[in-house]
Amino acid sequence: MHDSLTLQLLGEFIGTCILIILGDGVVATVSLKKSKGEGAGWVAIALGWGLAITLAVYCSAFLSPAHLNPAVSLGMAVAGKFPWAYVIPYSIAQILGGLLGGIIVFAHYYDHFKETKDQFAILSVFSTEPAIRNYKMNFLSEFIGTTVLMFALLAFTRGNFTEGLNPIAVGILITSIGFSLGGTTGYAINPARDLGPRLAHQLMPVPNKGKSDWAYSWVPIAGPMIGGALGAWLYTLIP
Amino acid sequence: MHDSLTLQLLGEFIGTCILIILGDGVVATVSLKKSKGEGAGWVAIALGWGLAITLAVYCSAFLSPAHLNPAVSLGMAVAGKFPWAYVIPYSIAQILGGLLGGIIVFAHYYDHFKETKDQFAILSVFSTEPAIRNYKMNFLSEFIGTTVLMFALLAFTRGNFTEGLNPIAVGILITSIGFSLGGTTGYAINPARDLGPRLAHQLMPVPNKGKSDWAYSWVPIAGPMIGGALGAWLYTLIP
Amino acid sequence: MHDSLTLQLLGEFIGTCILIILGDGVVATVSLKKSKGEGAGWVAIALGWGLAITLAVYCSAFLSPAHLNPAVSLGMAVAGKFPWAYVIPYSIAQILGGLLGGIIVFAHYYDHFKETKDQFAILSVFSTEPAIRNYKMNFLSEFIGTTVLMFALLAFTRGNFTEGLNPIAVGILITSIGFSLGGTTGYAINPARDLGPRLAHQLMPVPNKGKSDWAYSWVPIAGPMIGGALGAWLYTLIP
Amino acid sequence: MHDSLTLQLLGEFIGTCILIILGDGVVATVSLKKSKGEGAGWVAIALGWGLAITLAVYCSAFLSPAHLNPAVSLGMAVAGKFPWAYVIPYSIAQILGGLLGGIIVFAHYYDHFKETKDQFAILSVFSTEPAIRNYKMNFLSEFIGTTVLMFALLAFTRGNFTEGLNPIAVGILITSIGFSLGGTTGYAINPARDLGPRLAHQLMPVPNKGKSDWAYSWVPIAGPMIGGALGAWLYTLIP
Repeated sequence: MHDSLTLQLLGEFIGTCILIILGDGVVATVSLKKSKGEGAGWVAIALGWGLAITLAVYCSAFLSPAHLNPAVSLGMAVAGKFPWAYVIPYSIAQILGGLLGGIIVFAHYYDHFKETKDQFAILSVFSTEPAIRNYKMNFLSEFIGTTVLMFALLAFTRGNFTEGLNPIAVGILITSIGFSLGGTTGYAINPARDLGPRLAHQLMPVPNKGKSDWAYSWVPIAGPMIGGALGAWLYTLIP
Repeated sequence: MHDSLTLQLLGEFIGTCILIILGDGVVATVSLKKSKGEGAGWVAIALGWGLAITLAVYCSAFLSPAHLNPAVSLGMAVAGKFPWAYVIPYSIAQILGGLLGGIIVFAHYYDHFKETKDQFAILSVFSTEPAIRNYKMNFLSEFIGTTVLMFALLAFTRGNFTEGLNPIAVGILITSIGFSLGGTTGYAINPARDLGPRLAHQLMPVPNKGKSDWAYSWVPIAGPMIGGALGAWLYTLIP
Repeated sequence: MHDSLTLQLLGEFIGTCILIILGDGVVATVSLKKSKGEGAGWVAIALGWGLAITLAVYCSAFLSPAHLNPAVSLGMAVAGKFPWAYVIPYSIAQILGGLLGGIIVFAHYYDHFKETKDQFAILSVFSTEPAIRNYKMNFLSEFIGTTVLMFALLAFTRGNFTEGLNPIAVGILITSIGFSLGGTTGYAINPARDLGPRLAHQLMPVPNKGKSDWAYSWVPIAGPMIGGALGAWLYTLIP
Repeated sequence: MHDSLTLQLLGEFIGTCILIILGDGVVATVSLKKSKGEGAGWVAIALGWGLAITLAVYCSAFLSPAHLNPAVSLGMAVAGKFPWAYVIPYSIAQILGGLLGGIIVFAHYYDHFKETKDQFAILSVFSTEPAIRNYKMNFLSEFIGTTVLMFALLAFTRGNFTEGLNPIAVGILITSIGFSLGGTTGYAINPARDLGPRLAHQLMPVPNKGKSDWAYSWVPIAGPMIGGALGAWLYTLIP
């Protein structure tokens, strides 16, 4: 990790961009028509996102602490492990990385968007959508998932584990949350993961796209931010 | 791991709670209606539970030895590696953690329980149910699974392996038992994993729920306890 | 690993027994009627066998070098890394471990064998059967698979890798061979893995069983033994 | 890794051969008729190729740097970490390894090729074919995938990670790209992976085979080479 804030922000930008290329990419692989992985299902989604975060950490950790998630940056600040003043700039870099990632997925799968008529499937490649729309319960899901995420991130650094395995451990964490808590809202658990590519969906001429569902967009921002803060605060209660 | 028994019990409580959130969570993801992972099948279940134990160990190992299972606490006592006097308090903390975990899964998937009419599927989210009801054979299954679990836990600490990998090794162990021995009873192999969330099923107003099947509940307690003790005893026979 | 040959043989016996409990177990989970994992498919089989070997190595490596396979013991002798005089005793311990493992799977899944009428499915739980019966080609498959296995086992110990990861590396190796070369004969690549449980199928009163297909049984013995020797010999050619 | 160029080339030859045996092997397992893994789907493909590269690195890293991919050799040269003069000889060794690997897969699955009538499925075992034929977009896909691959390979060596895990990290990388970016063209991201076995398809008497589709063959050469160079160049821009 670099001392320079600029290079740290570059790291967060690159890492979140790669996270979204690979994460949104696996949703595209599974959901879009004529993809070779069409219909590969939830096992592919959960493994694909977990692998995406591991790769994204591998690609950015030489520059930044690889939060790649505003909720993690906030939680780290709550836990006293990260300067409060960096939370906003980090978040902006992460969201911009997510935006670029979404644009690259748009380009990569362009011909497959053309073959896909389902507007919901197309939006779901970019941003999360709830399985059952109920803002209160959807918020609760995102909140619980991110509380677990943040508590786990803090707790496992205190165990006596092989540090050089951290990217893999984080991948395990995200895979597990996907398999277990993602069935309701698609586990954004990361405002940059949802907002960045939702902006890409809005801005890019995605074939067959519908609305970008901004009415829902506050849920995968507020739930993760509050969950991240709570998970970190719970952790600080333990001596 | 802390010296304080209170903090150890807190660790067991937290770890088992997270184990059940993620473990029961993956069953909910696969079994409940309108879940994004509905029908993901046994691969998702086995991987999901394995990842859940890895995460649970990561989250609790800075406080406790991360048994997260009364049968493991008993087995460790049989093997002379754990004080007999701690077995009961550890078990209580583990069961209470399982209860809270079950309650959180109830909340997380509330709307999906409302969509699910199958009482057996709903109960199976919380506690184990045999594929073919035959108490003698079901007991045997739980007994064999936990004997393998306990022997493996003791044996692998004696090999020359990377210690910092222990949470991953334990996850591999549970995933393997799930894939290979779980087809009969759903591999409780842990009384807290079954009893804690069964209590949550009994106590919480789970939509569309049926009976909590207490007639079966002794099997995933007795089988694992006796199997855990036997696995540990077999291990002690080896010079 | 112990100096005592007796304890080494005990290790090979225990390890191969656990390998077969978990390996044949995953085939039972996927193939037998009313199993919770019925129909989980090839992904489950390949992952399940890979996890089984990792666990088996974890459980036996404190006693023996964890060959768990007569073809590996032979190959190690060919490579000059193992006493020729130990090949036969090791092989016997491995086959006996496979026999006990098959008996335990018989007991564990007893009620599910009763529900299953397909004799081919029942035999396949215990020992391998070719997808297309053609002894020459089946031999070639087993031979190629075991050549890769043996060469890889020898080569990776010479790289600069984390030794404490060896059980996981071996699991990766077996999973990979399963995914990639197992589609033809079910990848015995290990005479003890096939012969031991085939004996269990012959000897035990497995409900609904048919013949034990001894006519085929030489293929998963000869193919792996010759492949193991060749893989080791190829390795020794490299300076 | 050896100092001798000859032994390095041998390592690249062996490693790429094993990569193709296991990688093309998993496609054969999933695609060919009567294979035990027929229909196992994209999860098997992505995991199988990821495991294949891990094994291939394990098998060759004692001889060579285990590029196993002309695009990686080129990218390493662009990044100043590999002699330019070695790029061509390495590439030739890699392509020859891929050719031999394809021939072995032809032999291993011979009877299953006889059962398979779909010429597209047969060619796909050997080399990549686009899901939607559009050379410009197919090129873009291969280009994006290899840019991510090369950037990640360079970036993760600069993080503070366990070096002995490198073969596993590379496997994670390839699995992730497969799950996320492979839906369009089947992710060659490696000219030797495509050209070598395409030659095998052309030269060998594969039962029921059709044309080797040389019209497409430049895409999985040019896309990866230019992507590998770009990924390396982007990396060198970061201080």
